[in-house]
Amino acid sequence: MSSTEPRRSIATVCLSGTLEDKLTAAARAGFDGVEIFENDLVASSWPAKEIGEHCAELGLSIDLYQPFRDFEAVPPDVLARNLRRAERKFDVMDQLGADTMLVCSSVSPDAVDDDDLAAEQLHLLAERAAARGIRIAYEALAWGRFVNTYEHSWRIVRRAAHPALGLCLDSFHILSRGSDPAAIRTIPGEKLFFLQLADAPRLQMDVLQWSRHHRLFPGQGAFDLTAFTRNVLAAGYRGPLSLEVFNDVFRQADPGPAAVDAMRSLLSLQETLGVADLPPAPELAGHAFVELAVDAEAEVRLTDALRGLGFAETGQHRSKPVRLWQQGDARILLNGSPAAAGASVGAIAVESADPVASARRAQRLLAPILPRSHRAGEADLSAVAAPDGTSVFFCRTGAGAADSWLGDFTQLPAAGAGAGVTGIDHLALTQPFDHFDEAALFYRAVLGLEPEPVTEFAAPFGLVRSRTVADRSGRVRVALESALLRRGDWAPGVREPQRIALTTEDALASARRMRELGAPLLEIPGNYYDDLDARLAPDPELVAALRQHSVLYDRDETGELLHFFTVVLGGRVFFEVVQRIGGYAGDGAVNSPVRMAAHRRQRAAALG
Amino acid sequence: MSSTEPRRSIATVCLSGTLEDKLTAAARAGFDGVEIFENDLVASSWPAKEIGEHCAELGLSIDLYQPFRDFEAVPPDVLARNLRRAERKFDVMDQLGADTMLVCSSVSPDAVDDDDLAAEQLHLLAERAAARGIRIAYEALAWGRFVNTYEHSWRIVRRAAHPALGLCLDSFHILSRGSDPAAIRTIPGEKLFFLQLADAPRLQMDVLQWSRHHRLFPGQGAFDLTAFTRNVLAAGYRGPLSLEVFNDVFRQADPGPAAVDAMRSLLSLQETLGVADLPPAPELAGHAFVELAVDAEAEVRLTDALRGLGFAETGQHRSKPVRLWQQGDARILLNGSPAAAGASVGAIAVESADPVASARRAQRLLAPILPRSHRAGEADLSAVAAPDGTSVFFCRTGAGAADSWLGDFTQLPAAGAGAGVTGIDHLALTQPFDHFDEAALFYRAVLGLEPEPVTEFAAPFGLVRSRTVADRSGRVRVALESALLRRGDWAPGVREPQRIALTTEDALASARRMRELGAPLLEIPGNYYDDLDARLAPDPELVAALRQHSVLYDRDETGELLHFFTVVLGGRVFFEVVQRIGGYAGDGAVNSPVRMAAHRRQRAAALG
Repeated sequence: MSSTEPRRSIATVCLSGTLEDKLTAAARAGFDGVEIFENDLVASSWPAKEIGEHCAELGLSIDLYQPFRDFEAVPPDVLARNLRRAERKFDVMDQLGADTMLVCSSVSPDAVDDDDLAAEQLHLLAERAAARGIRIAYEALAWGRFVNTYEHSWRIVRRAAHPALGLCLDSFHILSRGSDPAAIRTIPGEKLFFLQLADAPRLQMDVLQWSRHHRLFPGQGAFDLTAFTRNVLAAGYRGPLSLEVFNDVFRQADPGPAAVDAMRSLLSLQETLGVADLPPAPELAGHAFVELAVDAEAEVRLTDALRGLGFAETGQHRSKPVRLWQQGDARILLNGSPAAAGASVGAIAVESADPVASARRAQRLLAPILPRSHRAGEADLSAVAAPDGTSVFFCRTGAGAADSWLGDFTQLPAAGAGAGVTGIDHLALTQPFDHFDEAALFYRAVLGLEPEPVTEFAAPFGLVRSRTVADRSGRVRVALESALLRRGDWAPGVREPQRIALTTEDALASARRMRELGAPLLEIPGNYYDDLDARLAPDPELVAALRQHSVLYDRDETGELLHFFTVVLGGRVFFEVVQRIGGYAGDGAVNSPVRMAAHRRQRAAALG
Repeated sequence: MSSTEPRRSIATVCLSGTLEDKLTAAARAGFDGVEIFENDLVASSWPAKEIGEHCAELGLSIDLYQPFRDFEAVPPDVLARNLRRAERKFDVMDQLGADTMLVCSSVSPDAVDDDDLAAEQLHLLAERAAARGIRIAYEALAWGRFVNTYEHSWRIVRRAAHPALGLCLDSFHILSRGSDPAAIRTIPGEKLFFLQLADAPRLQMDVLQWSRHHRLFPGQGAFDLTAFTRNVLAAGYRGPLSLEVFNDVFRQADPGPAAVDAMRSLLSLQETLGVADLPPAPELAGHAFVELAVDAEAEVRLTDALRGLGFAETGQHRSKPVRLWQQGDARILLNGSPAAAGASVGAIAVESADPVASARRAQRLLAPILPRSHRAGEADLSAVAAPDGTSVFFCRTGAGAADSWLGDFTQLPAAGAGAGVTGIDHLALTQPFDHFDEAALFYRAVLGLEPEPVTEFAAPFGLVRSRTVADRSGRVRVALESALLRRGDWAPGVREPQRIALTTEDALASARRMRELGAPLLEIPGNYYDDLDARLAPDPELVAALRQHSVLYDRDETGELLHFFTVVLGGRVFFEVVQRIGGYAGDGAVNSPVRMAAHRRQRAAALG
C-alpha cells in the first residue's frame, strides 16, 4: 500500500461464518482493519479482550464497533436506560481496543421528532464516550424514523457541537434515497468520522429489505460510488474506506474468496478515484483460443465434432498432449487429461497488447497467478485463475515466433473442410452459484471488460440470470450465467453448461455445410418456427430455411441474429454458430429456453 | 370429486420441467385441466395436435391457452400485425383443442389510452375468434399500461359487447393492488370466462417483480383468497378454479410434489369456501411422542443424553427394537435401525380426538398414507408422510389399553432421576429447501394447524427463515425452518438440524439437575450475558444464574422465556428445555445465532 492510499476495512457482517472465520478471511485478503458487527461478537466464545489481541496479531485494527441503535430523542427514563446500555458497550470497546462507535438514527417508537432533544442527548452520549476515549459516529439510516438523510444527521451533529461526535456516511443509505452527495463537500472533514461503502442493484422495493438482502461490493451494482467517494474525500475525510455489505449470497459463501472479492472491489474503486497505482489494463483484441480439458472418450467426441464443424487439426504441442484445431481465427485446444471428467473449458485466452502488464495487473488485483511449466524455447504464457477456476491466459498470437504460443505447436498439414467459421464470437460460462457477482467484478477489474446489465430468463428447470462482460469493441465477450436460486436434486438440465460461440457470415450456409460434414447439430422443434412466424413474421422463405436447418432467429432495433447449436458434448460443453446482421448486440437469450429444452431431449434420448 | 365441486386446473408455468414433465405431474396430482403456457408449448418437441391428444389420454382438458399479449388500442398497421399473430395462435389452439385464449391488457409502447379503441379492436378479435369457435378472456395486468384494474377491463369488455369476449380474473392482479373484490359480484357470471388463483406474501416491491417471483399457492401467502373466490362464485362463475403461480422455488422443484402441493391448496380453499366434502380436522391435544431413528452409536449417545436429561426408560416395544423413554408427558422413542445414519426424527405423533378421522382427512388431502406392520393385539396406528419424509402419527395415548399405542410396550420399572420436564413444548424441523411453503400448507391443511407469520434471522452461515404452525391452544407446535437460500459447499453449520423442545417449570433448577446427571448441555459464551445485561438489564442475580447455567433469556410484552440446549447428538438432533413465564409466545429466535455458533464450536471441538 502506498502511503497516499486510504486504509481499507471491512465490516464482519459482510462475510459468512463465525467471528474467527471472518477475521482470518479479512486478514488474508489484505484488509487493514475491520468493523466489528455486534452480533458477531456476542456469538463469539472469545472474550472481547482476546478478540482485540487476535486482531492485532492478524494486523487488523478495529476501526468501528457497530451498531448501537435507538439512542436519541427519548424521554428521560429511556435515556437513562440507553446511557446504561452505552456504558456497557463502551466497556466492550475498551476491551476490544476500538475507539469509534456507530450510532444509527432511531427507529424506536420511544423516540420523538425533536432535533434539539436529539442533539442534546447525543451531546451527552459523546461526553460519556469522550471520558472513555471513544468517538460517536452518528448515521442516518435510510429508514430512520425521523432522521433518514445525511443532511439531517449533519444538522443534528452540528447542533450537538461536541468534538467526540461526528458523522458516519453510508453510501447505501444516501444513494438508495436518491440524495445528492455533492453537499457532503460542505461538511468539515474532521466531522466525518467514518465512511461505509456499499453498492446495490437498482430495485423498486422497500429500502430496508433492499439494504438487508441485496447490497453488493462497489462496482457490482448500479450506484456511482466513484462520484460519491470523491465527494467524501474532497471534504477532507481521512479515515478508512470500509465495506458494509448485507448480501444473502455473501452471508453463506466461503468467506475466503468473498473477502478477496471485497478487497478487489476497493482496489478497483481506488483506481477510478485515482488513489491507487494499478497498472492500467492493456487493450484486448479478441479471443486467442479456448482450451478444453477432455478425457479419452470426450476427446474422440470433440474431435469428431470439430471435424464436423469444419475445423482442421493444425498443430500438436511439442511437449504436452494438446492438439490445436483451427478454422479462421477460431482456435480450440483439446488437452487430453487423465484428470478430466468428460469435457470442460479449462482455459480461455485473450489477445493482450501487453501480456506481461495484463498479468501484473491481475496479480495486483489478487487474481491467483497460475504456475506454468514450460520448456526452454516454449512461450512463457501468463495465466491467472478466474473465480470459477478457469485459467485465463494473456497472449499475443500475432507476435514473433519467439513470443507467440503458436510456436509451441508443430504445424500439421491443414485438412479441415471449412464451414465458414471466422472466429470466436463469445463464450458463455455458467458460474458457480456463490460466485456470480464476484465473476463479473473479476472480469471488469482484472481484464478491464465492461459489464452489461444483469438479465433474467425463465428456463425449463428454473430461472437463469446472465451478465455479459465485453471489451468496448466487443471482440472479447464472456457471458456469465448462473441459476437465480442454487439448483437442487431435481434439475435434469445440463449442470453448469459452457458454450463456445463461433462466428460465421452465413449461418444457413454454415449449417448446411456442417450437416454434410456430420456435425452433431441440435434439432429445434417445429413449434418454435410456428411461434417465430406469429411473433416476428420474417420472410416466409427465411422461416422455411431456418426450420429446415434448425437455425434460430432474433431481431432487435438495429439488426438480426441467426444462430444454431451442437448437442452437448462430453457432459457440459456445446458449440454455437452465430451470424450477426447489422448492429444486433445481444446473444439471442430469448431463444435459450427452446435450446435448453432441446438439449434436455437430446440427453434424455442419449440416456434412453 | 362431487358433482357440485368446481373443476380444478393448473397453469403449466407453475411447475418445473418440460411440458411433458408438467402434464404428467398435473395428471398424477388429480387435476382436471391445465392452462398451457405458450413458452412451454413453443419449447416442446410435440406438435400441438399431439399435445392435445396426450392431454386427453391423461384426462386433462386444456382450459386456457395463454398468454396473448399487447393486442389492443393500437394504430391500424399494428392492429393488422396483431390480428395475423392471433390467427396463427388460433391455428395452434385448434390443433390443441383449446377453446379459450387469455389476452393480457397491453404494456406495449404502441398502445394508446383509448377505451373505445380498445373495445372496438377487442370486438374485432372476438369476432375472428368466434369464427374459429374460440373465446377471448381479457385480463387486466396489475402493471398494464392503461388497463390495470378489473373494473377497467370490465368496462372495456362491456363496451365491446361481443359474446365471445369475457373477462379473466386473476387474484394476484386484483389483490396486489388492493382492489376491492366485492364489485366482482356485479359482473354477470357468463362474462367471467376464467379465474386464475394465486396467493402471495405481502411485499413492498415493484408489483411486476412481486408477481413474477413470489406468487404462492392459495393458503401459503397473505391474501384472503376465500373472500375473493366467494365473490367470483357468487357472481355466477362456473369455470375451473385454476392456479397460475410464478414462483422461483416451484420453477425448479420436482414437479411431482409441487403439483400435489398445488392440488392440496385448492382442496383446502374449497373447504373454506364450503364447496368440498372433506372430513373436518379433529381436535389435537398435544404431542404424543417423538421417534428418533438411531444407528448403534447414536443410540448409545441418545440413551446417555436422555438419562442425563432425567428421562427414564419405561417401555420396550413387544415386537420391534424400539425403546420408550419418558419424563412427565414427554415421550421419546429410540428406534434402533440399521438403515439410520446417526440420529434423526423419523416420526412425530400428535394426540388426536379421532385418529381414524385424522387419517381419513389426510388421505383426502393427498398425504401419502404409510403402511404399518403391526401384529395381532398391537395398536393400528394411522400415519402419513410429511413433505420432508417425517412420519406423522395420529394417536390417543389416553385411550383404553386396546387402542393406545402404549399397550404395545412392555412396561419397565421406571428408574429415571427426573429433572423437571413435564412434556414436549414444540419441535423444530429443518425443511428441505424446496419444500418450505409446501410443509406449512401440509400442516395447516392436513392437521388443521394455524401458520404464524414467516420470520427471518441472520445465522452465522446464512439467513434462516422460520414459520411455526400450531393448534389454537398451542399444545401442538412445529417450527418449520429452512435456509433462505439453499446452502452450498461452504456451510460448516449443522445440516438440517432437528430440535426437540421440552417443557419445564423451572429452567434454572432443571439445568442444575441435568448437569448433575451428566446431560451434555451446550455452553454459552460470556459475551452473550454481557450483551443481555446491556440490552434487557434483567435482575443481576438472574443474569448471574443464567450465566452460570448457560441458560438463555428473552422477554416480550407479555412474558419471559428461559431456555437451554444440549449439544448436537448423532449429527443433527438436539434437545432444548423451555420455561415460559407469563404469555411469552415466541421460541426465542433472537438467541438462535448464539446457539448456532455454540453448536458450531462444539462440532469443531469434537472433530478437532
